Amino acid sequence: MENFHHVLTLATINPNVVQMQYAVRGPIVIRSQELEKELLSGQKKNFEQVVKCNIGDCHATGQKPITFLRQVIALCSYPALLDDPNFPEDAKERARGVLAGCAGASVGSYSISIGVPTIRERIAAYIKRRDGLSANPTNIFLSNGASEAVKAVLLLLSSCQPGPDRVGVMVPIPQYPLYSATNSEYNAYQIDYYLDESNNWNLDVVELERSLAEAKVNCKPRALVVINPGNPTGQVLSRQCMEDIIRFVKRHGLVLLADEVYQFNIYNPDATPWTSFKKVLHDMGPEYADSVELASFMSASKGYMGECGFRGGYCELINFDPDVQAQLFKYLSARLCPAVLGQVMIGVICDPPREGEPSYETFVKERDSVLADLKMKAKLTSDTLNSLEGVTCNDVQGAMYAFPQIRLPPKAIAAAKEKGVEPDFFYCLNLLEEKGICFVPGSGFGQQPGTYHFRTTILPSVPVMRQVMADLADFHKDFLAKYSS
Amino acid sequence: MENFHHVLTLATINPNVVQMQYAVRGPIVIRSQELEKELLSGQKKNFEQVVKCNIGDCHATGQKPITFLRQVIALCSYPALLDDPNFPEDAKERARGVLAGCAGASVGSYSISIGVPTIRERIAAYIKRRDGLSANPTNIFLSNGASEAVKAVLLLLSSCQPGPDRVGVMVPIPQYPLYSATNSEYNAYQIDYYLDESNNWNLDVVELERSLAEAKVNCKPRALVVINPGNPTGQVLSRQCMEDIIRFVKRHGLVLLADEVYQFNIYNPDATPWTSFKKVLHDMGPEYADSVELASFMSASKGYMGECGFRGGYCELINFDPDVQAQLFKYLSARLCPAVLGQVMIGVICDPPREGEPSYETFVKERDSVLADLKMKAKLTSDTLNSLEGVTCNDVQGAMYAFPQIRLPPKAIAAAKEKGVEPDFFYCLNLLEEKGICFVPGSGFGQQPGTYHFRTTILPSVPVMRQVMADLADFHKDFLAKYSS
Repeated sequence: MENFHHVLTLATINPNVVQMQYAVRGPIVIRSQELEKELLSGQKKNFEQVVKCNIGDCHATGQKPITFLRQVIALCSYPALLDDPNFPEDAKERARGVLAGCAGASVGSYSISIGVPTIRERIAAYIKRRDGLSANPTNIFLSNGASEAVKAVLLLLSSCQPGPDRVGVMVPIPQYPLYSATNSEYNAYQIDYYLDESNNWNLDVVELERSLAEAKVNCKPRALVVINPGNPTGQVLSRQCMEDIIRFVKRHGLVLLADEVYQFNIYNPDATPWTSFKKVLHDMGPEYADSVELASFMSASKGYMGECGFRGGYCELINFDPDVQAQLFKYLSARLCPAVLGQVMIGVICDPPREGEPSYETFVKERDSVLADLKMKAKLTSDTLNSLEGVTCNDVQGAMYAFPQIRLPPKAIAAAKEKGVEPDFFYCLNLLEEKGICFVPGSGFGQQPGTYHFRTTILPSVPVMRQVMADLADFHKDFLAKYSS
Repeated sequence: MENFHHVLTLATINPNVVQMQYAVRGPIVIRSQELEKELLSGQKKNFEQVVKCNIGDCHATGQKPITFLRQVIALCSYPALLDDPNFPEDAKERARGVLAGCAGASVGSYSISIGVPTIRERIAAYIKRRDGLSANPTNIFLSNGASEAVKAVLLLLSSCQPGPDRVGVMVPIPQYPLYSATNSEYNAYQIDYYLDESNNWNLDVVELERSLAEAKVNCKPRALVVINPGNPTGQVLSRQCMEDIIRFVKRHGLVLLADEVYQFNIYNPDATPWTSFKKVLHDMGPEYADSVELASFMSASKGYMGECGFRGGYCELINFDPDVQAQLFKYLSARLCPAVLGQVMIGVICDPPREGEPSYETFVKERDSVLADLKMKAKLTSDTLNSLEGVTCNDVQGAMYAFPQIRLPPKAIAAAKEKGVEPDFFYCLNLLEEKGICFVPGSGFGQQPGTYHFRTTILPSVPVMRQVMADLADFHKDFLAKYSS
């Protein structure tokens, strides 16, 4: 059967695809899936199940859907339920609003490419409540998860060409690897700027200036990506820092891409309240508010709802040239529209039950319970990690992750290099094989050379998270003992 | 406010985005949306509504969803309904099967990147029933509509680079503009091969050879796209022609991309039964069956179900190098997963009620009613078009479109050129303004130089379609009168 030559081989396919990496679903995760199959087939391990701390997937780790959101989805999918008295009136009102905005009153018709108009209006109303500033629905486009919107904006500003005219995109290190993967795909030049781990992952403008100055010989810098709250770092930017960033992009003629998908995941609002970049930009006055090009991304997958599978997301564009915006929307038209029920999901998240509506109390109770648990697990995780020898972890101020530094013994580093893998990959793979815990090595996010980290989510239930931390402590002690001396 | 320079302008953004066109949602369609707003605001027109014959969007033109499909979606979205006696047991069985395959038994969790395993198994079972040949679920990946899968495979085989190493992709003319738009985006060299309008849009290998030979100096040809049943042409390929195509791709070392999303839309199965490329490839014996690299695309958006808004689709890969397939799946992992309810939709379409199950009779009745209507409208449309002076239209054997040729008077062509638009664009824009009927000009799909066409769907209800044809006849007569003499 193999006596022919494939047309498509590793040598003939798109080199950008070969080069791209996405560690959140990389080799460690693929190995964890094999382990699950081995367990199912009856093989004996030190553990009875694999705990997936590799991905921000709330429902996969047992979190239950928010009732109201799912009621609206069911009503939109099967409108006969609008006559069912078991469904509350506020859910029906939302569903009727959606169906009125869909061609043929069906979520099975295509929407216009940027999304159902009535849904974009509800999102604009949410942004207005959040920031106290008007938002124009015509500047909002919906997307299959925030990921699709991020990729579309990066495509728009990339040149997709080799050579010195490559577009440069500034990305934090550590970063969420969607950015590095997309830069690989589009052949953009990635300008790494480092977050300051010793200062709770602070974003320092001096470092922005350094990285930009060094990169300018290799590319045309065009955009700065900021993730706030941070993934994988969990930091929340101070207002002062956000102002510095805005002055920086204005000074250097860059577009600001603000990944704000964790805007509901704030665990210490007294110390660091979360503010949108749009709000800070506005407050800095017309010199900035009327000129800095800003794209802000939001998702249905995170927050308290965690509806990843719906792939709901949106992007608000601010100060974009209307002609450029039209080009972006033309580009989006070739994929016709984002999944309509994903649009419905992000729309309802932006228009939840209001006080006095029948679902309000249940909704608030369910939402606050999830957020309270996350807050508790954020502290549990960083406290436990800091109690381990050679491990330090910054506070998890927001988002869903901890990104601790692990100081590995030279012998462990040597053992990893002998196997041709990164030392933190080696650590995570051993942890997976011995304890069934799936973390992502820091090398998948980027880190200062010579430092080692891993990312863990804080999503498993409190008892599971306690067990994960106990198992990690055991493993870590044994690992140090094995590779010390 | 405009006293600053945008970072992103038409001169600085990605030129591939600027160049790309997607006529199905192009300027005519944008104008039709404006007309709808003007009607809503009370402006008087010659018509009371815009009839959208521009896009294969079944529900938008009044087709009702298939009950069973929507019941399964509602059950998966809101599993409390599994206890509702109003839902049939077969729908519940499908929903339980889906939820068992989802992490945390929730459609809100991410699936693995290529799609929920239990859904891919049901798709493989469908393909096996269809072709009488085994299908391996590990070679099937799910996607947000077939469009995402087409784009992913084209990305995989493109070089994304300028110059003589550009990858060449053979595309039929006329074609569905997703292909030309994607080739623009990836900077692939599009090799146009013409379908033979005088022979019912036949695909002739002599023409494939001609176009390939001429293109070889400009690119490295790597793939052939075939759309069967055809969009916009409505033709169904004969088995002989499919064998010729397979021999052609084998001879020239090309990958075959088979867009088979209209496989349920066949209106004259006695004359031209539809067969999958996979089946024909197999029947040609191991010399072909074990070597030709084939990607076959299918969608939830067409057929009798028309569930466009769900964005369900899949692709089956045949004879791909496992290492290349792994690269493609790695690439897909960065977008995490297709919308899970879209996956559910395409999965249930491939696993509809079976004889003896409670929903069987209703399902068959609903499905057959849609398909019988489409068959009637296919004939109504081509018959009416052929009755117009200077218009000829091939039989609509399959898919959802007619693509008639219109012979325009020289004065009309001159009037169009004076306005700087294509003559068929001019014709369609006038039709829209005068009658509120939205067709897509042939220039959006490609056509032989000097010929003019438009594409209309056959989707509006029978009475609306009759009215569209009557209005078109009126318009056409007046248009000829105005521009003749």
